[in-house]
Amino acid sequence: MPQTVIQYLLNRLKQLGIRDIFGVPGDYAFPINNAICDDKELRWIGCCNELNAAYAADGYARINGMSALSTTYGVGELSALCGIAGSYAEHNLVFHIVGMPKMQAQERHAIVHHTLGDGEFDTFMTMATPVVCAKAMLTPENCIQEVERVIAAALEYHRPAYIAIPHNYVHENIVPSTASANLPVKSNHEALEEVVSAIVNKLSNAKKACIMPGILVDRFGLKDLTTAVVTASGLPYVTMALDKSVLDETNPSYLGLYIGQLANPEISEFVESCDCILAIGSILSDTNMGGFTAKLDKSHIINIIPYDVHIGYADYTNLKMSDVLEELAKRLHKRTDVRGPAAKSPTTPDVDADDPITADYLYASYAKFFKPDDVIIVDSGTSFYGLLPIFLPKGARFHSQTLWGAIGWATPSSFGAALAAPNRRVILITGEGAHQMTAQEVSHFYRYGLKPIIFVLNNHGYLIERMLSKKIDYYYNDLTQWQYHKLPEVLGCDGWMMIKATTCGDLDKIMAELDNTKTGAYVEIVTPEMSAPPLMEAIHKNL
Amino acid sequence: MPQTVIQYLLNRLKQLGIRDIFGVPGDYAFPINNAICDDKELRWIGCCNELNAAYAADGYARINGMSALSTTYGVGELSALCGIAGSYAEHNLVFHIVGMPKMQAQERHAIVHHTLGDGEFDTFMTMATPVVCAKAMLTPENCIQEVERVIAAALEYHRPAYIAIPHNYVHENIVPSTASANLPVKSNHEALEEVVSAIVNKLSNAKKACIMPGILVDRFGLKDLTTAVVTASGLPYVTMALDKSVLDETNPSYLGLYIGQLANPEISEFVESCDCILAIGSILSDTNMGGFTAKLDKSHIINIIPYDVHIGYADYTNLKMSDVLEELAKRLHKRTDVRGPAAKSPTTPDVDADDPITADYLYASYAKFFKPDDVIIVDSGTSFYGLLPIFLPKGARFHSQTLWGAIGWATPSSFGAALAAPNRRVILITGEGAHQMTAQEVSHFYRYGLKPIIFVLNNHGYLIERMLSKKIDYYYNDLTQWQYHKLPEVLGCDGWMMIKATTCGDLDKIMAELDNTKTGAYVEIVTPEMSAPPLMEAIHKNL
Repeated sequence: MPQTVIQYLLNRLKQLGIRDIFGVPGDYAFPINNAICDDKELRWIGCCNELNAAYAADGYARINGMSALSTTYGVGELSALCGIAGSYAEHNLVFHIVGMPKMQAQERHAIVHHTLGDGEFDTFMTMATPVVCAKAMLTPENCIQEVERVIAAALEYHRPAYIAIPHNYVHENIVPSTASANLPVKSNHEALEEVVSAIVNKLSNAKKACIMPGILVDRFGLKDLTTAVVTASGLPYVTMALDKSVLDETNPSYLGLYIGQLANPEISEFVESCDCILAIGSILSDTNMGGFTAKLDKSHIINIIPYDVHIGYADYTNLKMSDVLEELAKRLHKRTDVRGPAAKSPTTPDVDADDPITADYLYASYAKFFKPDDVIIVDSGTSFYGLLPIFLPKGARFHSQTLWGAIGWATPSSFGAALAAPNRRVILITGEGAHQMTAQEVSHFYRYGLKPIIFVLNNHGYLIERMLSKKIDYYYNDLTQWQYHKLPEVLGCDGWMMIKATTCGDLDKIMAELDNTKTGAYVEIVTPEMSAPPLMEAIHKNL
Repeated sequence: MPQTVIQYLLNRLKQLGIRDIFGVPGDYAFPINNAICDDKELRWIGCCNELNAAYAADGYARINGMSALSTTYGVGELSALCGIAGSYAEHNLVFHIVGMPKMQAQERHAIVHHTLGDGEFDTFMTMATPVVCAKAMLTPENCIQEVERVIAAALEYHRPAYIAIPHNYVHENIVPSTASANLPVKSNHEALEEVVSAIVNKLSNAKKACIMPGILVDRFGLKDLTTAVVTASGLPYVTMALDKSVLDETNPSYLGLYIGQLANPEISEFVESCDCILAIGSILSDTNMGGFTAKLDKSHIINIIPYDVHIGYADYTNLKMSDVLEELAKRLHKRTDVRGPAAKSPTTPDVDADDPITADYLYASYAKFFKPDDVIIVDSGTSFYGLLPIFLPKGARFHSQTLWGAIGWATPSSFGAALAAPNRRVILITGEGAHQMTAQEVSHFYRYGLKPIIFVLNNHGYLIERMLSKKIDYYYNDLTQWQYHKLPEVLGCDGWMMIKATTCGDLDKIMAELDNTKTGAYVEIVTPEMSAPPLMEAIHKNL
């Protein structure tokens, strides 16, 4: 039987391993929405709004390797744009499928709803261009060619792709054709040899060296290969903020967090005294570099990123990260002479049961609470800086959005992650300012039978912003007080554990109970307004 | 004393009549946020997220003539983009002030947070270009010239403008300079004479004629002048969907809603039998034209829009709407021979107190509830179509977003409108699907001491979407059930009237109580799942 345009696209997405499609329905997208609901192998995952849907798709992609989002023309796609941009910045693959007005309306420049009223129909696709790695408007004639081209680019660059389908084409039969070969990028062999030899030499001859695995290791599915490189090298490794937990933090070679001069002075001193640092898939951004307090000599840094290698000031292009890492895993000489400082976990302060919950006590409590294979999703903010120094159990994965840094991302993202990881414990840790942005999405955990553990830090405002300012008391950092712990009930999450902790005793009791809770759980944690983790104190001092 | 860049900008916005600035703070925008809080004549209005802030600014602009929004770079501005696009489509003037990274970071292409990680800094301004009428990046040197240029364009076109300020320039003193003259557009006098004569002749000689005042009358502040034209002409007038209440609906010349063949057959027959229709500031969009069921002969239509006049197939440019209307008000011959059909209000059906609330009963109840000068903000959806045929009391203003049609717009927009109209009764009417998108903003009515009346229609899903589909039971139109009437309490609205109506008796009692309520009020109205107003039934049949 011939396939329709949408069937061809959905079948290809299913072949790639997508089972859930996030979105908000809308009339221009109805034929797409219908096709998804009619497909027994797919689930339509309706979200409260399109930005939340985009964040949820981002979270799903982090676990599943890719995801799909469907929105309607104009209003829907633009609402999702900040989420798509975040996926682009942080290399998560989201296929964004947009339902467009009929070609007949486009051709006669009709003034229809969800447009700017100017009869133009390519405006929004153009606006999306900088935040996708490929885009297409499908027709029955170009469907096979264009879907294959877009998929190939998305898999290659692991970034969002934009696929628009005019309303009247969605259910038309495709015109059979053969897709052009979309061959994956291959490494240039001579350059590969030169680069690998140079890296082997540099690491062998360095007085002191270490490895710095980065976020792109995770995004390009290279955790095992990178672990093999670490093992072959015999060198210790550190991670920067965005890179937390890309390799297991229980590995004896793992020293801990490197964040310039802001924390862990022994680690800083060690890293900055290395004459060779092998970064693998790292993004040398402001946050990663401790607000640019990192004192790294560029001539000492090697960075292997998806299609390039930088060795000091030399840039090599057309090299696949996986090819470089495979060669290094085979050819590195194991060093046994380089040792970093001993790893140090934060200690738990002594408290009384009715003491208020301080940052120190809170993050030490989380450290004890985490279990192997937990999926921990953390919004940019106070909690992020509190959790960074904690060593996580084996297989536990810490997800943040450190480069793009859109607050509010974590709540919907953890919903998406929970759908993609039904057999793992999903823990959302957010602050109330971020949570207010996207809180309605909590209702969907319940709707889809998911049982997350949600911690909402209530410290009466945007504490991260107070700490990033010289003057801490501007009123724009104040927030309306919600009764956070009652929110899930109103949002329909029947039977959840919902509770508020204001003392260390409350927190201990709740953490213990959570181990035995069989439902979703939502914990509001109240701390003093200015109780900040040490790393944030350091950021404040560094201003 | 010399002014800083931000002082110059804020002083100009204050001179234009802006007192509140909506937004979400963020580190790149801190100097802007600080300056707003430090200015005793301005209020920073923090919203839950940037899209809500953009919608709130849109609502404020609808009442105040213009508004301002401040967001941070990348994450903030992109989140607001759908709201800005709606303001652009529907001609609301919003100054969008974006805090950018420091010029030093931009110049060295630093990899900083809230970017795509590519060292580029003009990406987001470029993305915003299609949805603003002017844009600028301010420096101390260009500040006066650029602020004046952007303001002149925004006032002229009454659409959003984009103003970015690099972090380090915000508090720098401006370099004194004289702004180039930004003269308003003037009408070409010969063309004006030709157009006005042609319109006068056409209206005088038509067998039957009517007037169709449109939304741009409201946006360009031409209500009084347009009313004068109506009076001078002696002709009856109708309004299309987007245009509801742009002129008073108590005017005896007002016939009611014209929406093609979808409702009011006597009005359709009358309008479509006119051989001259004078549209003033109308947008001939799909929704306005009853899903293009309107049978209007283009050769019979005159449309006076802000800078152009269309007479049949002839287009005249460089004509100011106000100039054309002024001349027409003076020169039109009053006709007393054209009469339209008698205006008909929907009737109230007979019900028992414990009957479920049907659409017919609900909209008839609203009709009795509205008072003079009410500000009524209605989301695109079922309620919109239910309310369209109702005649409103004098001075009452009905705001919808019929062209852009982003559902969820109404909740934050009504918050913005309430701030701009502290002495008027503000009524939000939304459906639960739209409300779920932006519901958190309810908390801010309370925070700022506002007392809106909020009606949330709960009919177990997106009813408008069921009615726009041939098949009504696709599960993507189902929604998670919230306990809507308990939401304001959890969001901190202490002491509000919060109640749920499921029967006609409930509704009567609540409507009566609302007249005496001194607090904000939030009413959840439960109707049967498929109870749709007649206009929506007509749309469904028209598919």
